[in-house]
Amino acid sequence: MNIEVRQSARERAQRVKPAVIDCDIHPKAPLDELRPFLAKRWCDYLDTYGVRSRHGFAKGYPYPKGTPQAARRDAWPPGGGLPGSNLDFMRAQHLDHYGIELGVMNPLSPSGQGEQNPEFSAALASAMNEWQIAHMSRPEPRLKASIIVPYEDGEAARAEIHRRAGERDYVQVFLLSRTAEALGRRRYWPIYEAAVEHGLPVGIHVFGYSGWAMTNTGWPSFYIEEMTEHATSSQALVTSFIMEGVFARYPDLKIVLLESGFAWLPALGWRLDRIWKRLKDEVPHVDRAPSELIREHFWVSTQPMEEPEDPDHLMEVMEWIGWDRILFASDYPHWDFDDPFLALPPSLSAERRDAIFAGNARALYRFA
Amino acid sequence: MNIEVRQSARERAQRVKPAVIDCDIHPKAPLDELRPFLAKRWCDYLDTYGVRSRHGFAKGYPYPKGTPQAARRDAWPPGGGLPGSNLDFMRAQHLDHYGIELGVMNPLSPSGQGEQNPEFSAALASAMNEWQIAHMSRPEPRLKASIIVPYEDGEAARAEIHRRAGERDYVQVFLLSRTAEALGRRRYWPIYEAAVEHGLPVGIHVFGYSGWAMTNTGWPSFYIEEMTEHATSSQALVTSFIMEGVFARYPDLKIVLLESGFAWLPALGWRLDRIWKRLKDEVPHVDRAPSELIREHFWVSTQPMEEPEDPDHLMEVMEWIGWDRILFASDYPHWDFDDPFLALPPSLSAERRDAIFAGNARALYRFA
Repeated sequence: MNIEVRQSARERAQRVKPAVIDCDIHPKAPLDELRPFLAKRWCDYLDTYGVRSRHGFAKGYPYPKGTPQAARRDAWPPGGGLPGSNLDFMRAQHLDHYGIELGVMNPLSPSGQGEQNPEFSAALASAMNEWQIAHMSRPEPRLKASIIVPYEDGEAARAEIHRRAGERDYVQVFLLSRTAEALGRRRYWPIYEAAVEHGLPVGIHVFGYSGWAMTNTGWPSFYIEEMTEHATSSQALVTSFIMEGVFARYPDLKIVLLESGFAWLPALGWRLDRIWKRLKDEVPHVDRAPSELIREHFWVSTQPMEEPEDPDHLMEVMEWIGWDRILFASDYPHWDFDDPFLALPPSLSAERRDAIFAGNARALYRFA
Repeated sequence: MNIEVRQSARERAQRVKPAVIDCDIHPKAPLDELRPFLAKRWCDYLDTYGVRSRHGFAKGYPYPKGTPQAARRDAWPPGGGLPGSNLDFMRAQHLDHYGIELGVMNPLSPSGQGEQNPEFSAALASAMNEWQIAHMSRPEPRLKASIIVPYEDGEAARAEIHRRAGERDYVQVFLLSRTAEALGRRRYWPIYEAAVEHGLPVGIHVFGYSGWAMTNTGWPSFYIEEMTEHATSSQALVTSFIMEGVFARYPDLKIVLLESGFAWLPALGWRLDRIWKRLKDEVPHVDRAPSELIREHFWVSTQPMEEPEDPDHLMEVMEWIGWDRILFASDYPHWDFDDPFLALPPSLSAERRDAIFAGNARALYRFA
């Protein structure tokens, strides 16, 4: 997009001020703000052992050093603290500036997800859930919380969902994409069961701490490759959900793919349909075409959106996935943030634009 | 496709008898036929230690047991022996029956690729190369050979390419997709250098013995998932070639993706272009958009071809990849064999059909 087009798109968007629900905002809890929500035992543990994520970070921090905290350079609060940690600044820079109507918070770390010590993982997740309410969504009702769960322990995760789901500020259950086993496996089913019981979608954000190498040829050389692998690991994840029969068991389960892109989804559906037609006796619990299950159970989010040379190709991808299945996400305050004024292709009809910006999220998360 | 359409497509194709070059035929060398091409030392080794592939088969034979040798049930030679092992039967059942003009042989195992012992790997690969000529392409000039290389040892692979490439019956260098490191890494560059020196394309067939888990969440439960992962591992492979700068170093290198499908390729190009635009300073050796490099350096093959509900989507995928980049492949004698009479969408123009059936392979492999 050249600068003139960007300018006019921005001006048009600013005039119209579309309703925007942002489905991927990353707040950051300073450890000191989490401590009041941790038992003394875990505060001591934190001091002695620190945060020890499963394997994933053993090879170093997963973001480029040149963008500390993976953040936009202008997202550091002027008064100090980490990007995403200061509510007033987030409000001014993001919520007010773009007229965000509602934002779904997806805290990444420290959140206990993927922690080596399972009890500490559960304690940190629980603390993060309380922090989101106390420090963010209570003072700022536009912000909604995700229920962080210690996902490698299915029963502890189920208990945490039951503990939180009554409170309407929690709008989804939150997982990461790189787990110890593929997410369709039975060890994770208590999470899906509890989510369905409470009518909550399950958001799955890329990244995580599986302990497995990034690809089946090991670790790649470049960060660019890691960014690419989010799409391939998401393909494995969608495949696992379908082939393990999760949707046969939980027909009301709704999955939101966060920050994984989505242009790969139609090709995956075509491939799975073809293979399934020939080998379906291996998975008798999969009684419908995989592409149907994808379109019924998966939502996708816009950041980062693939950019075909021919914008019609993106329209066709969206058409295949379903215009009611695409959610706007900014990824604020991260460096690869998408500006709501510029994120969507100009050729979208007003109706589809509104659905992606707000209508689809409103329906999915049951915002009044 | 319903039965009537299939019938009429088959009749039409049989009437017209298009020229067909089949770029993926799997011959099978009985171990006893390989022995004359092995030094006594390695014959003894074979008796004592057997074939010990790197890790990949440790978890069991990678094909369903119900299709032994992964073969069509009717591909077992009536006189005995394994599918692909009897030239007369292959000739009758495949080459003559379909009027195959030329076929490229891609021997999978036993071929030494991925063997634990590097010298034995090189010896077996070399024996397989001699077997292809002696037992297949000399008695049957329609069959062309691939140069099997012990790819985990770049210099030994280079030496094997130099040893064979003068002989015109060898038409490509042959690798598998699951290697110890990503195929763009420098340890494999001697292979590409030798291939370019001799003007040979490098065919990369899915499967292999990397020793790494299939996905970054470990091993999947189902064979269907393994079939799907061929597409994701191919995405990682294409990404690695581009980001490691292989094409900047070897601008004449041509890569053929065998049995990986290809509908995922445009979405990968879009994703890589977007990421590369933002992070290109990480890979200064990548001086062109990844999608351009994909379309310049990669060929794809038709088996297995994704099957969109809307056949126009497949046309668009092919258009993006390039009509001169798509090669017909049957995968004979494997169970997921594609019948040349039925493999291509009926809506293709005669010109494009001819290109995919034969013209593109003729140009790539420089068949007279």
